[in-house]
Amino acid sequence: MYQLHIGSKNYSSWSLRPWILLKHFNIEFLEKNAPLDEEQAYREYIENGLLPCLYDEGFNVWDSLAIAEYLAEKYPQMWPENIKARARARCISAEMHSGFSNLRCTMPMNIKLRAQGGDLAFSVKQDIERICSIWREARQFAVTGPYLFGAFSIADAMYAPVVWRLHCYNVPLPDDAAIYRDVMLAHPAMQEWEQGAFTEKLVLSQEDMLLEAFGGRR
Amino acid sequence: MYQLHIGSKNYSSWSLRPWILLKHFNIEFLEKNAPLDEEQAYREYIENGLLPCLYDEGFNVWDSLAIAEYLAEKYPQMWPENIKARARARCISAEMHSGFSNLRCTMPMNIKLRAQGGDLAFSVKQDIERICSIWREARQFAVTGPYLFGAFSIADAMYAPVVWRLHCYNVPLPDDAAIYRDVMLAHPAMQEWEQGAFTEKLVLSQEDMLLEAFGGRR
Repeated sequence: MYQLHIGSKNYSSWSLRPWILLKHFNIEFLEKNAPLDEEQAYREYIENGLLPCLYDEGFNVWDSLAIAEYLAEKYPQMWPENIKARARARCISAEMHSGFSNLRCTMPMNIKLRAQGGDLAFSVKQDIERICSIWREARQFAVTGPYLFGAFSIADAMYAPVVWRLHCYNVPLPDDAAIYRDVMLAHPAMQEWEQGAFTEKLVLSQEDMLLEAFGGRR
Repeated sequence: MYQLHIGSKNYSSWSLRPWILLKHFNIEFLEKNAPLDEEQAYREYIENGLLPCLYDEGFNVWDSLAIAEYLAEKYPQMWPENIKARARARCISAEMHSGFSNLRCTMPMNIKLRAQGGDLAFSVKQDIERICSIWREARQFAVTGPYLFGAFSIADAMYAPVVWRLHCYNVPLPDDAAIYRDVMLAHPAMQEWEQGAFTEKLVLSQEDMLLEAFGGRR
């Protein structure tokens, strides 16, 4: 059986991606958690570890996008079936994987947070506009189903953490983006993840949140 | 025929990846270049564009890693054949895609540069040690051939820009890493790219070099 090593459910945005992917496609896995007892132990763990990491018969596969592609070889339904939709899903997954540093810096994932919201820096607004435009264009490929390309795909898993950011920092969105955000928030695996986050006692400093967001190896 | 839109050969590290991949596998493509006449025009181009971008019959595929996966669907020989080697190649390609910001920040790709070298910040040294360790581990999967996984693969294309950085900033390397760097530098497509860089007149400021290195959408 797969083993998935993940960080904090409250903070580890990269961990959420393979976790929700496995959950959505009903693939059995054993969840292994980083030590969540105290900040220092957790910090050492995320600094040294390659998280998230999937163990498959003793062989480790790390990085959220690489894990997704590895799984998609066995479960091709994780990508859209249409070749152009699949290409587009890969473009936007990769764009999220390497980009949006202004947004990530300003709004580290913190699922327990319910911020009031407020003015955003221009560069953060640009990131959010780009995300809304990516979602809008993806939906043009959707035939049936409420997710980015209709059926749930790796692209939805890649954007799942940003859905939490937009929700928890109370970012106003255009109607179509708000609909997609709410569809994702209602996903049973997103709700299960949120419940997990609320049971965690770990509290990270802003610095460690950024380490979570930018840790070099995930 | 494919069209590949790329930025400056001297500066655009992301552009090099799909370019060398297409060249290595002898896949015909039309090269389309960003305006290289003056800094301001180039700056606007990279700020607004999705570079590199592959056009396939009017359909655009962007991001170096997404382009690679898109091509690999048609040319599966672009990834290692062995499933574990292929998984590892994806891990290290993704790790390069989203990581090593200290190295990228400190040593933006600048192919015409021949720096003397010197002391490096601890965080940059850590990045370089990690790269050497990634290369060493990859070589354990290699059966024949001098590249990371033996035969040339997407992983080599993903690490091609860092080979230039290590060379141009004169970074001392352990023997095995130096051998791989020199193998890559001797690749005909790397030499052709270098010649292209040397014919360019564009000179970017440090700020614009960082925009090249961190431009959100590539």
